Amino acid sequence: MKQKYLLSTYKRQEVCFERGDNATLCDSEGKEYIDFAAGVAVCSVGHGNCRLARAISDQAAKILHVSNLYRIEPQEECARRIVELSGYDMRCFFGNSGTEANEGAIKIARKYGERDGSIKRYKIITLENSFHGRTITALKATGQASKHDYFGPYPDGFVYAANVEEIESLIDETTVAVMIELVQGEGGVQPLDKQKVQNLSALLKSKDILLIVDEVQTGIYRCGSFLASHYYGITPDVITLAKGLGGGVPIGVVMTRLKEIFSYGDHGSTFGGNYLSTVAANEVLDILEAYNKSGEMMEHQNYFETSLKSFALHYPDIFTERVGIGMMQGLRVIDSEVLSKIIDSAFEIGVLVIKSGRNTLRFVPPLTISKSEMDEGFRRLNSAMQHG
Amino acid sequence: MKQKYLLSTYKRQEVCFERGDNATLCDSEGKEYIDFAAGVAVCSVGHGNCRLARAISDQAAKILHVSNLYRIEPQEECARRIVELSGYDMRCFFGNSGTEANEGAIKIARKYGERDGSIKRYKIITLENSFHGRTITALKATGQASKHDYFGPYPDGFVYAANVEEIESLIDETTVAVMIELVQGEGGVQPLDKQKVQNLSALLKSKDILLIVDEVQTGIYRCGSFLASHYYGITPDVITLAKGLGGGVPIGVVMTRLKEIFSYGDHGSTFGGNYLSTVAANEVLDILEAYNKSGEMMEHQNYFETSLKSFALHYPDIFTERVGIGMMQGLRVIDSEVLSKIIDSAFEIGVLVIKSGRNTLRFVPPLTISKSEMDEGFRRLNSAMQHG
Repeated sequence: MKQKYLLSTYKRQEVCFERGDNATLCDSEGKEYIDFAAGVAVCSVGHGNCRLARAISDQAAKILHVSNLYRIEPQEECARRIVELSGYDMRCFFGNSGTEANEGAIKIARKYGERDGSIKRYKIITLENSFHGRTITALKATGQASKHDYFGPYPDGFVYAANVEEIESLIDETTVAVMIELVQGEGGVQPLDKQKVQNLSALLKSKDILLIVDEVQTGIYRCGSFLASHYYGITPDVITLAKGLGGGVPIGVVMTRLKEIFSYGDHGSTFGGNYLSTVAANEVLDILEAYNKSGEMMEHQNYFETSLKSFALHYPDIFTERVGIGMMQGLRVIDSEVLSKIIDSAFEIGVLVIKSGRNTLRFVPPLTISKSEMDEGFRRLNSAMQHG
Repeated sequence: MKQKYLLSTYKRQEVCFERGDNATLCDSEGKEYIDFAAGVAVCSVGHGNCRLARAISDQAAKILHVSNLYRIEPQEECARRIVELSGYDMRCFFGNSGTEANEGAIKIARKYGERDGSIKRYKIITLENSFHGRTITALKATGQASKHDYFGPYPDGFVYAANVEEIESLIDETTVAVMIELVQGEGGVQPLDKQKVQNLSALLKSKDILLIVDEVQTGIYRCGSFLASHYYGITPDVITLAKGLGGGVPIGVVMTRLKEIFSYGDHGSTFGGNYLSTVAANEVLDILEAYNKSGEMMEHQNYFETSLKSFALHYPDIFTERVGIGMMQGLRVIDSEVLSKIIDSAFEIGVLVIKSGRNTLRFVPPLTISKSEMDEGFRRLNSAMQHG
C-alpha cells in the first residue's frame, strides 16, 4: 500500500527501520536487527556513527553543494587521501554511484583506444557472472545474459570470458581493456585466484591492454586492505570505488594512472564530488584509517571469519563452502530455495543477511561491527537455522 | 597544485567557498559572492538553509542508508509527494543523478517498445543541442555531435531533430519515444513553443509513442510551476528529475504513468532513494511548497525577471535577447568571447553566473534568493559591465 507510488523494481521486506547504532538497526516497533548486510556493503562505519553524523551536520550548515566550475576543497582532499591510501600514482574523478564510476572507467578505456591513424581499440573483456551496474552500458558490461533483455540496443564492444584463464584467448587487435571484480559481489563472493590475476595483469601490461578493477564493493577496506588490488599485489590502470566510501552518502570514484586522458568537457557530473559527499568520505576515511592502523580492524575481521567458520561447521549438510575475503564473506548453500528460507528466517529472528548469485549467503557487515554484535548475530542465526 | 589528484575534466575558478547563506557564498578570504548559479540549478533552497541542514543532521544521527531490499519510509513519502505535486498518475524510481534518471527513462521506453511477436520499437528522437547526461547512453541521447567523440561504440537508436516541428518527419515504425527538455538548460535556455509542444504531445499519443520530458533542470519549481510540463499544459508519459530536488544532496528520479513497466530485478540502485537523500528531498519539497503557496515564490520570480530585464536594457549592444521561464533565465550575448569576459568580470566583482550553449549568460539562482540579494547581484553585475 505504502509503495503504491514506487515502481516495482525491488521485492522488499516489510520493515521500516527508524534508527541504528553501529551494526544494530531498530525498526518502528522496537525490534532490533543485527545488520550483516550494511546496505549491501555501504555502511562501512556503521549506522548512526557519531563522527560521520557530526561531519555531515557541520557541513550541511555551511555548504552542501557548488558547481565543479569552482574549486571544492574537500573533493581535492578526498582525491589526495584516496590516491595516497591506494599507493598508486593516479588521479580521480567523482560521480555519484558505482555504475557512474564504471561508466567513467569505460569512457577512459575507450578514449585510450582512440588513436589517430590506426584501428580503434574499443573492446572490453569482462567476466561471466560479473556485475558492473544498472545504466545501459554498465549493464552490458555485466556478464549475465539474463540482464540483457528488454533494454537494447546495447553498445557493442563487450566480450565475456568464462573465467580468468579464458581472457587471453579472447584478446584481439581491437581489445582495449579487461574489467574485473577481484571478488564478485553479485556473482557468488568467489575471490579470483591470486596467481592467475597476477599473470593476467602481466599479460595485459605486455600487450598495452588496460586492467580496470571494479572495486565498488571490494574497496575501502572491505577485503582487509584499503583496496582488494593490494591483497592481489597488482597495479591496475583504472579502479572504481563507491559503496563503502561515503558511509551511506551517495558517491562514486573512478581513478586512473592515465592522468591526462580527459580534456576539459570530456566528462562531468553536477553533484559529483560536492561538499556533502566528499566531507562524508573524508570522515569515513579518517575513521577507517585509524581503525586499521590500531590493528582493531584486522582483529575484528579475524573474529568475524572465525565466528562464521564455526557457525557454518554446524550445518555441513546446508553450507557446502565458505568463500570470500575479509569482511566480504559468503557461504555456499546447497540450493537456492534453502538459501531464501535462511534469509527469511534470519530476518524474522532479527538478522539481516543477503543473497549473492544463485546460492550464496552473503555477509558484508559494517567494518566497525563490534564483537558482541557478531556474537549476537551468529547466536540468532543459529536459532534461525534450528527453528527456521 | 591542489588539483593534482583530480582528472582534468573541469576548468575551475580559483576560489574555495567556506560557507553560504541563502544566495550568498563566502570564500576562504572573506570575499562574498551573490550566487546566480546555485551549483547549476541545484541549491533550490539556498546555501546553509537551516531547515534542510537540520533535517539532514537529524537523519544522519539515525540512519543514512539501508538497502532497497527493505522498505524505506521517507522514500515512499518522497514518491507520494512528487506524484501528488505533479498531479500525474505515476510511479517513481530513485537514482542518484540526472544522468541516472535519464538512463532509467530510456530503459522504460525500450522495455515499452519490446512486444512479443511484433517488430521491436527502440528509436528515441531527441533534439539538437539537448543535454541528457554523461553516461554513455545518456551522452548518445544528447543531440550534440561534439559530445560523441572518443567514447564509442555508442548504442544505436537515437535520432536527432533540428526542432520540434521536424520530429514528426523522423518517426518510423521503430520509434518508441521522443525525449525533450522544455527549456534546454545547456542548449541556450530557449523555451520550446508551447503550442508546438502541445501539438507534439497530441501527435505522440495518437501514435502510441512515449513523450519523455527531461525535467532534470526545469523541474522542482525552477520554471515557476512544480514541473515545466504544467506550464506547457501537457501530460508526459515519463518525467525525469534531479538537480533541485535534494537541495544539494545527490538524487535523481524517473517517474512514469507505465506503473507496471518494471518487474523485480529490471532496474536498481544501491544508494538510490536512501534515507539521507529522500529525507533531504522531503524537506526541500516542504520548504518550496509552502514558499509557493504563500505567493512569495512567484513574487520573487517576477522581481528577478523584472530586475534582469531592466539590467539587460542598459546594454542593448551586448545582450540581444532575454530567454527563459521563471528562475531559469538567459541573456543572449553578441558573441562567446564577450560572454566569457562577462562571466569572469562578474566573478571578480563577486557574482556567480554561468554559460549555457555558445552564447547565453545563464541565471539559475536559488529559488529562495532574497530581493536584497538580487539587487546586490545586479548592482555588481552593472559594475562588472562598466569596468570589466
